[in-house]
Amino acid sequence: MTATTASFTIRTRGKGTTDITPAVADIVHRSGVAEGTVTVFVQHTSASLVIYENADPTARADLHTFFERLVPDDATGYTHTLEGPDDMTSHLRMVLTRTSETIPIHRREMMLGTWQGIYLFEHRAQPHTRSIAVSVVGV
Amino acid sequence: MTATTASFTIRTRGKGTTDITPAVADIVHRSGVAEGTVTVFVQHTSASLVIYENADPTARADLHTFFERLVPDDATGYTHTLEGPDDMTSHLRMVLTRTSETIPIHRREMMLGTWQGIYLFEHRAQPHTRSIAVSVVGV
Amino acid sequence: MTATTASFTIRTRGKGTTDITPAVADIVHRSGVAEGTVTVFVQHTSASLVIYENADPTARADLHTFFERLVPDDATGYTHTLEGPDDMTSHLRMVLTRTSETIPIHRREMMLGTWQGIYLFEHRAQPHTRSIAVSVVGV
Repeated sequence: MTATTASFTIRTRGKGTTDITPAVADIVHRSGVAEGTVTVFVQHTSASLVIYENADPTARADLHTFFERLVPDDATGYTHTLEGPDDMTSHLRMVLTRTSETIPIHRREMMLGTWQGIYLFEHRAQPHTRSIAVSVVGV
Repeated sequence: MTATTASFTIRTRGKGTTDITPAVADIVHRSGVAEGTVTVFVQHTSASLVIYENADPTARADLHTFFERLVPDDATGYTHTLEGPDDMTSHLRMVLTRTSETIPIHRREMMLGTWQGIYLFEHRAQPHTRSIAVSVVGV
Repeated sequence: MTATTASFTIRTRGKGTTDITPAVADIVHRSGVAEGTVTVFVQHTSASLVIYENADPTARADLHTFFERLVPDDATGYTHTLEGPDDMTSHLRMVLTRTSETIPIHRREMMLGTWQGIYLFEHRAQPHTRSIAVSVVGV
């Protein structure tokens, strides 16, 4: 059994999703773990994770549209407004998606479905550098 | 320490929740792990996981009602519409619930609360065969 | 490699968030694990977990406001109403947040971001005693 941790950063271009599957797969391969789990963890409260459809870009465009509607930046009644209208809504969109995901590893590969990719979901309007922590545990 | 992976499929009957707790418990028991974790992972982007109240069926009926309202199939403005009106909404309902859950194991049993069951949440209108990956890690 | 499980309870004061980061950190430190993961699991279906901004209390106040609006207690059409108007909505708010979170451990510390805290999110109006299960796996 081994347990190894790693982290990496990505630069986002403002609101939207970025595929981080290759970066996570690379850490899994380098760990040497054949059977076990990989945990992906976003170290921020205004960005989050989703495991999402990776085939048709329109599915990701509609995801962005949906969150603009469900958690609109122009809603009134918030008090945490110092950093602008997209700050509080970024926390709420993060809460509705995920901070951590754990994916089983079998025969040295993540057991992702055919159409699943791991995405960082940036909720701030401006570009940010985001840190992702990764832990691989197994044999 | 051991790390074992398994998977199983279930046939859904269209939209709704199916209790997969017995199938996961069986994998935990067969793993021989007494202390550790079990990770349950849905290998799809139009079905998801919830750990939900297992006593009163009305709670699950209301869950279904809530998602029909929060993410209505007849919403306009989506572009990912090739597979019908329940396709895009199935991705969104998946994103708002979970793809993976990790449950502590103590004395060979999952540490579920009294009223907690593990449910597959099917979001497509038609029946589907769904694959669930399971990883058990521990001593 | 070791795998240890623990649990603790907290008393909530009704709806709202309670910081459980110190309690989880204490279990991590006592486990002796330097590299690995900690899984935090809420054993209830009317309370949940969020990893949330820990610096400005207004961000948490707005979180509470948001869920009162997104899942209003006075919505009609639910059938699971025996325990009062905040019972069904507590299940729905739980489903939209998290039951489990897994956090990588590096050099004996959780790899939380600077502004991240682990919070129990109580969704019932009355105070409750809530049980949290914790599993630490690693080297």
